[in-house]
Amino acid sequence: MISRLAIIGVGLIGGSLALALRKAGKVQHVVGFGRDQAHLNRAVELGVIDEAATSVAAAVKGAQVVVVATPVSMMGAIAGQLVDVLDENTVLTDVGSTKVGVVEDITAAWGRVPPNFVPGHPIAGTEKQGVEAAFAELYQDRKVILTPVAETAQTAVKLITDMWHWAGAEVTSMATQHHDEVLAATSHLPHVLAYTLVDTLGRLNDSKEIFQYAAGGFRDFTRIASSDPTMWHDICLSNQLELVKILEVFQADLQKITAAIEKGDSETIQAIFSAAKHARDNLCDHL
Amino acid sequence: MISRLAIIGVGLIGGSLALALRKAGKVQHVVGFGRDQAHLNRAVELGVIDEAATSVAAAVKGAQVVVVATPVSMMGAIAGQLVDVLDENTVLTDVGSTKVGVVEDITAAWGRVPPNFVPGHPIAGTEKQGVEAAFAELYQDRKVILTPVAETAQTAVKLITDMWHWAGAEVTSMATQHHDEVLAATSHLPHVLAYTLVDTLGRLNDSKEIFQYAAGGFRDFTRIASSDPTMWHDICLSNQLELVKILEVFQADLQKITAAIEKGDSETIQAIFSAAKHARDNLCDHL
Repeated sequence: MISRLAIIGVGLIGGSLALALRKAGKVQHVVGFGRDQAHLNRAVELGVIDEAATSVAAAVKGAQVVVVATPVSMMGAIAGQLVDVLDENTVLTDVGSTKVGVVEDITAAWGRVPPNFVPGHPIAGTEKQGVEAAFAELYQDRKVILTPVAETAQTAVKLITDMWHWAGAEVTSMATQHHDEVLAATSHLPHVLAYTLVDTLGRLNDSKEIFQYAAGGFRDFTRIASSDPTMWHDICLSNQLELVKILEVFQADLQKITAAIEKGDSETIQAIFSAAKHARDNLCDHL
Repeated sequence: MISRLAIIGVGLIGGSLALALRKAGKVQHVVGFGRDQAHLNRAVELGVIDEAATSVAAAVKGAQVVVVATPVSMMGAIAGQLVDVLDENTVLTDVGSTKVGVVEDITAAWGRVPPNFVPGHPIAGTEKQGVEAAFAELYQDRKVILTPVAETAQTAVKLITDMWHWAGAEVTSMATQHHDEVLAATSHLPHVLAYTLVDTLGRLNDSKEIFQYAAGGFRDFTRIASSDPTMWHDICLSNQLELVKILEVFQADLQKITAAIEKGDSETIQAIFSAAKHARDNLCDHL
């Protein structure tokens, strides 16, 4: 049970966590803070949070757990505010889609990684955003990756692990840098491809007609291009290094298959398509 | 009402058409032909066809409509068999994902496009294949594109239009070459990207772990990479010209966004992501 939970940034991710913990009966009081007061009032109305705080300091006062659920680009500014007001017994975690940058932001504010900070990333979300889109089941059977560092206290990791279990998630852990490499491949690269594809087709002369004939496969393929552009801009820049690395690998592979199609090199095309189908059907059997 | 319908290639596409027309009470007798006798017998057992023919000639004898629903790569061989046995009153159509190549195959066999041939393409399908996956509702509210040429008889276009309406589809028409351009963008390119992405990730050292953390967005994005590799190999080569053209446009755009991420060029990233979200949310509102 968490006696007092503070959510900094009450949107889809933070709001759904609050709802999940409430539903599980695992939180007594939820305080929210965000930049937009009207938005916070809406979160109170929707029963997502009990109380809208008017400052970061007020939100985290007396909190057992603080969850930063803002866009990753705001972590530096939030950490700068937290460092002066956070009680050393309060456990701090975040939900950022990249972890190297978040750990750097925390280190910049504290001069080290404080033992009660647990970097975290729930692999969940929809293309929607905002507290109106929050729902208690978002984390059900989803994975949450924690990336504790050498300094992180085991008691803090235990509490955050429990919190995500209560929200219905499966919790695993990995090294900070490895997290960013894995997510660049499975999440950030597909988002860049989906955005680029829709933008490419949208700039063709006959784009209106083209989209008219887009059907099921295209719909599924491009759904993630409806995600918040600012949030994904932030994630791309926050994971610049790993993302560019995998983008370059992908581009080389795409050039290879394009050349094969151009030359009518059946063997290469068949080999790539078959390997992909095999990987998709076997390695992704949990999907 | 179609008195006698012959389906050459009884899989998901041909089988679903037969089921839809039966369900609508718009076909009296369905004959199927395919390379695999066991497969054809299964189609009879499942009630998809009434009768399994043992040759193309036997299948099309007395048929009012013949639908070729084989992979596009087989169209040339099928046309070569049909030319000797098809009654000139029988209306012939196909369901191929590319149309320029199909019209060429027909022209090669007949020496011209016969008036009773109506090139067609239902924009429908799933990543599954085979007659077991066939279902009567596959074409419900889906688009079918017909690409009649100057020589095509209006009576033939009318009958095939009626047939697809009876199956629940919406029917439009466009020029043969334009069809291949539109489909290269909305269907063939996304398939190549999905196959390439899964293959790229599948060849990474930590691919097993990477796929473990793949979640919802990745699942939707890569579902089409479970499609039949041979069928997609055939489509890619059959639409080589248009596909390579759009692949090159996409590659240039991908290089542009990669460079923007590498340089931290926020403005370009935001502009591309925002334009894509706008196009996805507005132009694709039917999806």
